[in-house]
Amino acid sequence: MGKKVIIVGGVAGGASTAARLRRMSEDTEIIMLEKGEYISFANCGLPYHIGEVIEKREELLVQTPEAMKARFNIDVRIMHEALDIDRKEKNLKIKNLETGNIYTESYDKLVLSPGADPIKPPLPGLDIEEVYTLRNIRDMDLIKEYIDNNEIKHAVVVGGGFIGLEMLENLHQRGLKVSLLELTDQVMRTLDKEMVSMVHNHMRTKGVDLNLSDGIAAVEKENGKKFALLQSGKRIETDLIILSIGVKPKTELAEKAGLDIGVSGGIKVNQYLQTSDPNIYAIGDAIEVKDFVINEPSRIPLAGPANKQGRIAANNITGRKEKYNGTQGTSIAKIFDIIPASTGAAEKKLKENDFNYQVVHITSNNHASYYPGALPMMLKLIYQKKDGRILGAQIVGFAGVDKRIDVLSTAIRHQMNIFDLQELELAYSPPFGSAKDPVNMLGFAAGNIYNGLVKPAFWQELDELDNEEIILLDIRENIELELGQIPNSIHIPLNSLRDRLDELDKDKEYITYCAVGLRGYIAARILMQNGFNKVRNLSGGYKLYKAVMD
Amino acid sequence: MGKKVIIVGGVAGGASTAARLRRMSEDTEIIMLEKGEYISFANCGLPYHIGEVIEKREELLVQTPEAMKARFNIDVRIMHEALDIDRKEKNLKIKNLETGNIYTESYDKLVLSPGADPIKPPLPGLDIEEVYTLRNIRDMDLIKEYIDNNEIKHAVVVGGGFIGLEMLENLHQRGLKVSLLELTDQVMRTLDKEMVSMVHNHMRTKGVDLNLSDGIAAVEKENGKKFALLQSGKRIETDLIILSIGVKPKTELAEKAGLDIGVSGGIKVNQYLQTSDPNIYAIGDAIEVKDFVINEPSRIPLAGPANKQGRIAANNITGRKEKYNGTQGTSIAKIFDIIPASTGAAEKKLKENDFNYQVVHITSNNHASYYPGALPMMLKLIYQKKDGRILGAQIVGFAGVDKRIDVLSTAIRHQMNIFDLQELELAYSPPFGSAKDPVNMLGFAAGNIYNGLVKPAFWQELDELDNEEIILLDIRENIELELGQIPNSIHIPLNSLRDRLDELDKDKEYITYCAVGLRGYIAARILMQNGFNKVRNLSGGYKLYKAVMD
Ligand SMILES: Cc1cc2nc3c(=O)[nH]c(=O)nc-3n(C[C@H](O)[C@H](O)[C@H](O)COP(=O)(O)OP(=O)(O)OC[C@H]3O[C@@H](n4cnc5c(N)ncnc54)[C@H](O)[C@@H]3O)c2cc1C
Ligand SMILES: Cc1cc2nc3c(=O)[nH]c(=O)nc-3n(C[C@H](O)[C@H](O)[C@H](O)COP(=O)(O)OP(=O)(O)OC[C@H]3O[C@@H](n4cnc5c(N)ncnc54)[C@H](O)[C@@H]3O)c2cc1C
Ligand SMILES: CC(C)(COP(=O)(O)OP(=O)(O)OC[C@H]1O[C@@H](n2cnc3c(N)ncnc32)[C@H](O)[C@@H]1OP(=O)(O)O)[C@@H](O)C(=O)NCCC(=O)NCCS
Ligand SMILES: CC(C)(COP(=O)(O)OP(=O)(O)OC[C@H]1O[C@@H](n2cnc3c(N)ncnc32)[C@H](O)[C@@H]1OP(=O)(O)O)[C@@H](O)C(=O)NCCC(=O)NCCS
Repeated sequence: MGKKVIIVGGVAGGASTAARLRRMSEDTEIIMLEKGEYISFANCGLPYHIGEVIEKREELLVQTPEAMKARFNIDVRIMHEALDIDRKEKNLKIKNLETGNIYTESYDKLVLSPGADPIKPPLPGLDIEEVYTLRNIRDMDLIKEYIDNNEIKHAVVVGGGFIGLEMLENLHQRGLKVSLLELTDQVMRTLDKEMVSMVHNHMRTKGVDLNLSDGIAAVEKENGKKFALLQSGKRIETDLIILSIGVKPKTELAEKAGLDIGVSGGIKVNQYLQTSDPNIYAIGDAIEVKDFVINEPSRIPLAGPANKQGRIAANNITGRKEKYNGTQGTSIAKIFDIIPASTGAAEKKLKENDFNYQVVHITSNNHASYYPGALPMMLKLIYQKKDGRILGAQIVGFAGVDKRIDVLSTAIRHQMNIFDLQELELAYSPPFGSAKDPVNMLGFAAGNIYNGLVKPAFWQELDELDNEEIILLDIRENIELELGQIPNSIHIPLNSLRDRLDELDKDKEYITYCAVGLRGYIAARILMQNGFNKVRNLSGGYKLYKAVMD
Repeated sequence: MGKKVIIVGGVAGGASTAARLRRMSEDTEIIMLEKGEYISFANCGLPYHIGEVIEKREELLVQTPEAMKARFNIDVRIMHEALDIDRKEKNLKIKNLETGNIYTESYDKLVLSPGADPIKPPLPGLDIEEVYTLRNIRDMDLIKEYIDNNEIKHAVVVGGGFIGLEMLENLHQRGLKVSLLELTDQVMRTLDKEMVSMVHNHMRTKGVDLNLSDGIAAVEKENGKKFALLQSGKRIETDLIILSIGVKPKTELAEKAGLDIGVSGGIKVNQYLQTSDPNIYAIGDAIEVKDFVINEPSRIPLAGPANKQGRIAANNITGRKEKYNGTQGTSIAKIFDIIPASTGAAEKKLKENDFNYQVVHITSNNHASYYPGALPMMLKLIYQKKDGRILGAQIVGFAGVDKRIDVLSTAIRHQMNIFDLQELELAYSPPFGSAKDPVNMLGFAAGNIYNGLVKPAFWQELDELDNEEIILLDIRENIELELGQIPNSIHIPLNSLRDRLDELDKDKEYITYCAVGLRGYIAARILMQNGFNKVRNLSGGYKLYKAVMD
């Protein structure tokens, strides 16, 4: 007889473990416990069924217990909750939630993939019916039914993470006016503020009532009307409130059993995904992982890692030793027409962790500009100053963002540096890219900074610039001035710069700028080679500056 | 005073060299010679202007001589042909094609980026007006004018490389019926035959008259009618013939100057892109490069490499030593709705070069199946048997192909192996990908073969199978049989396989198959763990088999 493995949790991590386990071993007894009614559902699709983008609810049910039985011979027990682990006896106490019956089941190996719970802060009024969180099919059904069956016009989404933003888009899609509350000064914390400023502006143009640096304080009901009360004192009348302010790893079972919990609050595991008890593995949203770039314990609740960890746990259980090497947090979202994506560490995180890094911003089109439909994207790359190793990348654009973030995440995973990006031979024909892909271009621009060919200046400095000492040199064409200008700039178009150098003062410091940074770089090179010693080029150009200011 | 650099050729390689040179050095004298009327045009866009997809001709003119002068202070001389190099005197003989005037110009460094000429075989009748090739703006103008000004209904495109196929699509777009002639048994030779069979079928459904394994023998004119005469004897009446059977590197100038020519016929250069004369650099379509995977001299005429080589040549000339590390031939095309792409070496090439390789095929959707608009793509990965190093990848699909080929080309560039693919953390949300991206999935499927968890069988074997000894086991659902079946299969649906094992004979060899290979793999695992010792899974499944047979 083979081993007996019990898996707690039947969705992303759990079901992946079960399937791989069976493929590795026909004679393992596999029991999968799921306290909810459904297994193997597409958590990530939930917002889109509420928005009726995914029309059929059953599309979200990737596997059923019957199918898992038929194909993988898995003993799936839905509505069964794991209550307690007896590690000494290698027993699990289980409650059948339908009958109330409690029984124990022995195991050789146990896999915990219990996921995480949406955080619901203890604030006044949050317990009323119209305040929802979204984690599973049941949550989705409740929200959708409420929208379907009530004449509602307005929703408040609390939390600007990717789930909050996807909910926002889908509620908007259902015709609701939406207010977003976000406690920090930006949405999508895996990107830096200047990058998401484009997302903020895009949401505003779509009619979203964006409340940054403001959180929920209470929910009030008055004469049948509902109000969200904000920390700032603002009061928003609404019909529906979605809380998406993050998740808390489900660690009760592990804690009760005395398993180690990490500093980040997730279940602690070693590289083989074993908890402090080698017979118990843990995976998914419930665990603490190593941040691949920062190299610190972290919690990064994403579906890709959960699925991969499940496969690795199954391999380890069946004797094919395999390490999980950490999570870099690659993520992407579609918010109306705009697409923010990131991989690796954000600048703010690198700063907190005292990395010595350098930032570069560029703007490139998703494909050849001369081919119809070309759309710009802004890319940010962060690399380690000493060796050019790539630490993080962020992109905001409209098409082709996913491709570049995936190439960059591959680069980070393989410890590539900025010069490696220059060499990448990416597919080019006019509908798909450019002879120099945006990723190559990032490598070029970063390489130039690394090699001292140009020095960057950043939008953060412009606010408190001493305009006597540091001169902003706008080198755009005359016609571009109509788009606005950074205050106190002087203007010499790039193409006449060589002829007008004598209008400038070699003892002063110059910050050149154009629309996105490319021509500003050329201008900087001209100045630097003509006796100007203090020249920098504005990273991201006027476009980035304007996006932040708007 | 700085150096004096002359660049021969003013388009992809030449203009890139000039621009980078100027950014590196303000005081270099830079002369760029171009024998045609235009510099810096988008060669790759030419077919799309003929097809009126790119409406405005001027979109293709990326730079003008005036703009290159104004921005980069380049002395651009169009209609000037470089005639002869005097290497000893470091002089170049130049002809002004407008005036007929011939003069010499000295140089410190010379850069050759003369490109390549379309091949025009010496066959009867090919010199008539209605036979065109496409390389530059003038060629494009001639073809477009001919179509615009004549009532034409039919075109013959000779050659199924990517330029031929793009022309085919664009002529079709103009309402022409098109016949394609291709001498070999497949289009797009950088992919293998089974992969392009889907492209063949797609073209046929679009009404293309596809003539494989058949070439042009002659062009005949009779009573004002034109005919393409094929090698097979077939005769096609037509109005227009486009020859796109490949290009010949322009090596005259180099040859006359006694510079080394490589075995592949391109100008020979070292890793710094210097010819056998260290003062003369050569780049672009005219040179011989190292095939990055096969590690042999090769010619790979693509825009990305030409542009990058130009930048590297400029760096080397200005003292920043940089190597060009070879070309892997990443390429992509859009042909009607289908997108074939490849990177690294094709199987046929690896076979010719005696590599010990393994192939794997999978089919995956471009994004989560439950999100609207998911479309399948077929992926082929070829890796080195001994160490799993990735040697080549090919994809045919409808969306998301470019993303995966770019990730795979990055993997090849960095000598990654199949297990590295498993770990990649690629961006997932429903509109963009899956928790296990197709690239991860390739890694999983390849890893299973590498580890001996499953053995693949291939479509090539099926033709001459001894059905007594080797049994084809179709494990699809009953309803799927309506799509057709491989002859002489037996059928047991996967979900009842465990219960029906006694119907099978453990002494026989089995090839399992499903639609794409995933369930066939699960079936193979079940058999292998139940005492069946000779089991293989059909790579690519019924879908690939059918595509090849159609
Ligand atoms: C709305 C939404 C959108 C998302 N979108 C994305 C996205 O676009 N991209 C992305 O990468 N990730 C996304 N995620 C995150 C992703 O779904 C999770 O990272 C992933 O599901 C984690 O897998 P898991 O197995 O750890 O947890 P889950 O998939 O949540 O599975 C845990 C299961 O365990 C069960 N369980 C818990 N305790 C017990 C117990 N004691 N006994 C029995 N059963 C128990 C729970 O009921 C639950 O069903 C999204 C999540 C949500 C909620
Ligand atoms: C129709 C078409 C579509 C293409 N599509 C793609 C694609 O989608 N993707 C891709 O990667 N590549 C594509 N290519 C290939 C790409 O355009 C070439 O690889 C690239 O242009 C090569 O650059 P080059 O500088 O070597 O040559 P070119 O760009 O051709 O430039 C060479 C120039 O040198 C000039 N010249 C030659 N001899 C002399 C002389 N003696 N004196 C003065 N001037 C001289 C020529 O007139 C020519 O203008 C396409 C090419 C064509 C023709
Ligand atoms: C449905 C579910 C159980 C599937 O698990 P799975 O069987 O491991 O995954 P897949 O169906 O994608 O199949 C992958 C397997 O097929 C193999 N495979 C795929 N295509 C193949 C092909 N053409 N030929 C051979 N093998 C192939 C892979 O190698 C892999 O097998 P391995 O892990 O043994 O190497 C699990 O993914 C799940 O529950 N998903 C829904 C929940 C979820 O993930 N939510 C979060 C995201 S919304
Ligand atoms: C037009 C042409 C002359 C441009 O050459 P180029 O100036 O080197 O290229 P780009 O305009 O793309 O600019 C790239 C430069 O801008 C820099 N850059 C780009 N964005 C930047 C930003 N935001 N900030 C700072 N620098 C930036 C890059 O680092 C690079 O400079 P570098 O090479 O000195 O490192 C040349 O590409 C050409 O002739 N193209 C048409 C012909 C052709 O390629 N045909 C085949 C394809 S259809």
